[in-house]
Amino acid sequence: MENNQTSTNQIIKQIINYWADRNKAVTVFFNKYDDSAYLKEVAQNRSRAIYLLGHLIAVNDGMLPLLGLGEKIFPEFDAIFLSVPDKSVADLPSLTELKQCWEKLNATLANHFNKMTADEWLDRHMSVSPEDFKLDPLRNKLNVLINRTNHQSYHLGQLYLLNA
Amino acid sequence: MENNQTSTNQIIKQIINYWADRNKAVTVFFNKYDDSAYLKEVAQNRSRAIYLLGHLIAVNDGMLPLLGLGEKIFPEFDAIFLSVPDKSVADLPSLTELKQCWEKLNATLANHFNKMTADEWLDRHMSVSPEDFKLDPLRNKLNVLINRTNHQSYHLGQLYLLNA
Repeated sequence: MENNQTSTNQIIKQIINYWADRNKAVTVFFNKYDDSAYLKEVAQNRSRAIYLLGHLIAVNDGMLPLLGLGEKIFPEFDAIFLSVPDKSVADLPSLTELKQCWEKLNATLANHFNKMTADEWLDRHMSVSPEDFKLDPLRNKLNVLINRTNHQSYHLGQLYLLNA
Repeated sequence: MENNQTSTNQIIKQIINYWADRNKAVTVFFNKYDDSAYLKEVAQNRSRAIYLLGHLIAVNDGMLPLLGLGEKIFPEFDAIFLSVPDKSVADLPSLTELKQCWEKLNATLANHFNKMTADEWLDRHMSVSPEDFKLDPLRNKLNVLINRTNHQSYHLGQLYLLNA
């Protein structure tokens, strides 16, 4: 390989690009129908689309502390969208509010991702100890991003089932 | 970074590992219930689980020519699982047969993936011309694998909705 630093940076860029692509697909999905459509369940007795948006915000927001980038922006969403399934909480935030949170979070994450170096991406994420990381150097920040990209794809598969 | 060749190889290994992880999750899912459960739709008026297994085989099989690794093993599945939605074809292959195809394909792909070098992963995939690849070097074989990993996650999201 002619230039390995270039290769490493390029692959990291590909992974970030694919994250952004799936992130954008979620944004597009939630701008496709009238707001009322997102109050429907994606399948019978399953989560409503609006809950899945909140869930994606809560999970993606968790990347901030996990990647050592700061505190969560919306820690209050954990109790609504992470700890309990849909329909456990009487009132969810409105779709308008959730879409604003989604945009704010995406801008914050994109800003961080654009600044992170390859060395940072290949360093441990914050829920693995330095000792455990030595034993398994694949438990790095990049792995968190790969995982969360697939998490977006997972719920996109469900959202696309919505009978809007 | 101390050793960039190592970094490049490590990231490629992470991407392959995550592919294998999501691939395994599909295998585990289709060994979880009685065969009859997979004849159900994952959601009302949507694909049956058995169709999605065939669809995943057809799409993953397409990686062989796309990555320049050979011909498809099950080209006959395209007409059943790619060109048409579920319930277009009267008789699908049995679940037993599909699971055997799935295993055979996974072993073939794993064998190839383990042998491919970083240079090969970063080379163009076969549906992009050398000229277009020069303009966008991110259209490489690794991008196909990232995409197909997320495709597995996408349908896993749907499969997990199955009321088995």
